[in-house]
Amino acid sequence: MQPAEILQAHIARTATLTPEEHAYFFSHFKPVSFKKGQAVIREGDKVEHEYFVLSGCLKAFFINDQIKMHILQFAMPTWWTSDYHALYSQSKATINVDCITDAGLLALSNTDREKLCRELRQVEYFFRWRTNKGYVAAQQRLLSFMNNDAKTRYEELLQLYPQLHHLVPKHLIAAYLGVSRETLSRLYNTVKK
Amino acid sequence: MQPAEILQAHIARTATLTPEEHAYFFSHFKPVSFKKGQAVIREGDKVEHEYFVLSGCLKAFFINDQIKMHILQFAMPTWWTSDYHALYSQSKATINVDCITDAGLLALSNTDREKLCRELRQVEYFFRWRTNKGYVAAQQRLLSFMNNDAKTRYEELLQLYPQLHHLVPKHLIAAYLGVSRETLSRLYNTVKK
Repeated sequence: MQPAEILQAHIARTATLTPEEHAYFFSHFKPVSFKKGQAVIREGDKVEHEYFVLSGCLKAFFINDQIKMHILQFAMPTWWTSDYHALYSQSKATINVDCITDAGLLALSNTDREKLCRELRQVEYFFRWRTNKGYVAAQQRLLSFMNNDAKTRYEELLQLYPQLHHLVPKHLIAAYLGVSRETLSRLYNTVKK
Repeated sequence: MQPAEILQAHIARTATLTPEEHAYFFSHFKPVSFKKGQAVIREGDKVEHEYFVLSGCLKAFFINDQIKMHILQFAMPTWWTSDYHALYSQSKATINVDCITDAGLLALSNTDREKLCRELRQVEYFFRWRTNKGYVAAQQRLLSFMNNDAKTRYEELLQLYPQLHHLVPKHLIAAYLGVSRETLSRLYNTVKK
């Protein structure tokens, strides 16, 4: 599928755009390509875009004072990613987003999203529901984190991203779960059985 | 201030409604009162409303298998609360919401929110941005949780809810932070100094 079709199929799950409206909507996205390991957003950057993933796999993360990496989100095809705190509040990035594999993205600026939301009613509806779902997912992850049962969190992760083990090195999965690599190996063996 | 005025002032920070539009918007909210300790949402309930807090203080929480309480959110005046996962997906509640103090709320049904979003453009804009902010807050809380520094989390909490110590018993603050009461006492003494 072409980028415009991938985006169209994604939007169509929530909102109804005519082919003309979709073409206009799509014209505001800028295709960007990144190599494995490249940064899309760096801590301290001004953040002006959000990204729709066409191909590849990314991680949103931060490194704390003890130089430990925490992964906030993986982003797979048809997921959106950015530092939304920085994007929405026009402040500097407090997290990093980089590419676990080569990645193809569509970038949409903050300004264009707001313009499109004003111009096309269904676009505003789409973004409202996309964020509603993101909000719920973030709350579910928080609940899962608070409940602090690493095995359940690992099973939830595999449900959310079934392809993860083929795409992502184990130390990144451990950083997402907030467990050591040893704990992850133990979980991996338990869950496989 | 009357309930209609409290809601109007809250909406006006984000969106622009004419007095007639606001009166129509407000007419869809149902005032409800709860006593200290009463449940607004119980695990397993069908969830059909979200709640705008006029007065009092609530907590959204769940109890895990080890009978340990985890607090997902406190809700103060002008905050919104519900089990959004259940509300948006029309599934049964997986968390509880109850009243830490007597509380006055305005209930809005899922159906009415969607109707109002279709009818009034600025209402859809308001709800999109309310959820955008909620999404960012949930992510910030998750980041803060992952980073696992109880002192910083405690300071963030006091910044977010400066009145908290006057409203909420210490064991609930500990349940929000995910620390023991002993750790909280230690933090309380450190941060006061």
